[in-house]
Amino acid sequence: MITGHFTEVKEEKPQMAGMQATIRWLIAEKEGAPHFAMRVIEIKRKGETIPLHRHDYEHEVFVIEGQGNVLSRGGTTPVAYGNFVFVPANEEHGFENTGDVPFRFICVIPRQ
Amino acid sequence: MITGHFTEVKEEKPQMAGMQATIRWLIAEKEGAPHFAMRVIEIKRKGETIPLHRHDYEHEVFVIEGQGNVLSRGGTTPVAYGNFVFVPANEEHGFENTGDVPFRFICVIPRQ
Repeated sequence: MITGHFTEVKEEKPQMAGMQATIRWLIAEKEGAPHFAMRVIEIKRKGETIPLHRHDYEHEVFVIEGQGNVLSRGGTTPVAYGNFVFVPANEEHGFENTGDVPFRFICVIPRQ
Repeated sequence: MITGHFTEVKEEKPQMAGMQATIRWLIAEKEGAPHFAMRVIEIKRKGETIPLHRHDYEHEVFVIEGQGNVLSRGGTTPVAYGNFVFVPANEEHGFENTGDVPFRFICVIPRQ
């Protein structure tokens, strides 16, 4: 069993064009997780975004702090603590901080 | 894309002996999730538990509200908001509410 606190996990800058966010890998391959990885994504300031993009794997998201929008081709959906989002594989999506504090959410992905 | 709030999801009573908890399936097969399911587990009152048990799949847990203990053969680990727990397959584990409010955590499991 492995336990920790997300704030103790190294905050990294993902390599994606235009991405104004950081990522913490809480539970992944290096912890022995065989099937999926749990990360915390953080967009620090109002107006900063993860621009619309897509990939061949799904996201399962749960918002833990702050306020934001989930972006899609169809428009934006406001979210805050307690909201969850399922983004199927190959569907365009993005995120935006709309509040005055960091916007943080859990994002689980399948093992790559 | 599917969005929602966990409090809007039906709260169910799992079928496990001695389990003093409820479960909400946020994102699972019925939402089209191909690989893993996101649930919120809730232990409502201080002293109530999910007793030690094990199964052949892993848990990836993130505590969202309240205070509790993670139980293992080796002892207990206190957790609260922001703590994460990786429970490998076949490892004994349990949970206990130690606070005055509901103890809630996200628990992700592989597709069964």
